[in-house]
Amino acid sequence: MARIAYVNGRYQDMRDACVNIEDRGYQFADGVYEVCEVRGGRIVDMPRHLARLQRSLGELRIAMPMPLSALQVVLHEVVRRNRVSYGIVYLQISRGVARRDHAFPVKPVQPSIVVTARTISLAKGEDSAARGIKVITVPENRWPRVDIKSIALLPNVLAKQAAREQGAYEAWYVDSDGFVTEGSSSNAWIVTQDGRVVTRSAEFGILAGITRSVLIETLAALQIRFEERPFTPSEALQAKEAFVTASSQIVMPVVAIDGQAIGDGTPGNIAKRLREQFHRFSAFS
Amino acid sequence: MARIAYVNGRYQDMRDACVNIEDRGYQFADGVYEVCEVRGGRIVDMPRHLARLQRSLGELRIAMPMPLSALQVVLHEVVRRNRVSYGIVYLQISRGVARRDHAFPVKPVQPSIVVTARTISLAKGEDSAARGIKVITVPENRWPRVDIKSIALLPNVLAKQAAREQGAYEAWYVDSDGFVTEGSSSNAWIVTQDGRVVTRSAEFGILAGITRSVLIETLAALQIRFEERPFTPSEALQAKEAFVTASSQIVMPVVAIDGQAIGDGTPGNIAKRLREQFHRFSAFS
Repeated sequence: MARIAYVNGRYQDMRDACVNIEDRGYQFADGVYEVCEVRGGRIVDMPRHLARLQRSLGELRIAMPMPLSALQVVLHEVVRRNRVSYGIVYLQISRGVARRDHAFPVKPVQPSIVVTARTISLAKGEDSAARGIKVITVPENRWPRVDIKSIALLPNVLAKQAAREQGAYEAWYVDSDGFVTEGSSSNAWIVTQDGRVVTRSAEFGILAGITRSVLIETLAALQIRFEERPFTPSEALQAKEAFVTASSQIVMPVVAIDGQAIGDGTPGNIAKRLREQFHRFSAFS
Repeated sequence: MARIAYVNGRYQDMRDACVNIEDRGYQFADGVYEVCEVRGGRIVDMPRHLARLQRSLGELRIAMPMPLSALQVVLHEVVRRNRVSYGIVYLQISRGVARRDHAFPVKPVQPSIVVTARTISLAKGEDSAARGIKVITVPENRWPRVDIKSIALLPNVLAKQAAREQGAYEAWYVDSDGFVTEGSSSNAWIVTQDGRVVTRSAEFGILAGITRSVLIETLAALQIRFEERPFTPSEALQAKEAFVTASSQIVMPVVAIDGQAIGDGTPGNIAKRLREQFHRFSAFS
């Protein structure tokens, strides 16, 4: 089945779906994106993703190219046309097409919008979660505005590639103070030996993850102790458990960091429980 | 006259010239670029630009999509088809089109290549140079790998826009040690009261500008004293002259920094002389 994308008002075969070479997303990484989980054909936590999208656009002063209600229709339609039951829906908005010049176009242009969706094997995801993933640590080298979910992802690409080449799935950034910030495409968490779940504050240095925010509510509902503070790789290595969160990963147990096992080297019980319980606390649209 | 672009093997009307929405340049800023000056229909310092392009591609492990000799033919052909006598030729190479995943595609894909060219008014450039430009300073907030001429330019876009909104043309980044690194799309220079021309070493923190490298040779040939070292904005404010270099700017005098005049607030004699003499020392292809 051909994959279908929505591009600037049209539903198209992905193979033909294109944007102009002077799209500022292509020449300047001048755009933002969101990825939502799709589960049973429904979109998980879409309102939170759209709120974050609006914030990212606002920080870059890019106008929303269509009303939120219309955008929701498009997201659902792309999921439907691609017959995605389990998978992700991807949304990208750039500042639009203009003659190349670093500064914003003097005459505002229409922002470009792209929406795609694809199926992800539920079994494969569960299999990964049952085995757990390995992470490496890398020095934080991104700009400070990682709170904006921009497409300027080259540093993340290189970190993820470094992880893959070391037999790991994710790279955790470590800042100049020695604390883990986040993963190249996920938030980073540990569970201390006395059962407290720890992740860094989203005030500075990380993206405010949607799965992260729902999981914090999940922890409260399940009466699991939670601490919002930074942690170091060495604290993580001494932790009972570690895991990452991302829309496409839900809660994914981490079993090794830089080649050293976490706990007994198998997925932890709290991570497993949070993965099972997560969707009780997420919103379906 | 319609503008013509070269895109992945075809010469096309710019309005129709497009790349797939899953081009990694569009989703991850996973690509590099070069801009060369065109002067009298010839391309200025092309071999140096192509050498830097190869270095950038090498750092990202993106393959050259065609032999250098063929690329040179394409650059000339795009200049010719657009009838550019004075202007710029722009070249962008991304890792190519692949299903979205941060890590490099497991099966290598063909890199994407885009070449465009456009006329820039010679009179307008000379007029700018005769008046001089204003710059502002902004905190350095880019990743450390600015030695790679990547399309992950969102921080540069925001800095340039900040300059424009303050009535200036360029923004100079200032690092955490208080030194100027470079401009958002140019290298930064000063001339001290005793006539020494100063710019930062390209070892770390800046892009190794091509115009910068040719100008260093120009200084030697003209027996103008040169110091390669960092300088602070306050030293720049006390300087006799300041200027920026870029392929599209050549040598462009700076007459004010953060609203304060440099020297007598008009373009300096050394900057003017260097601008006049520059092309004696550049290579034309």
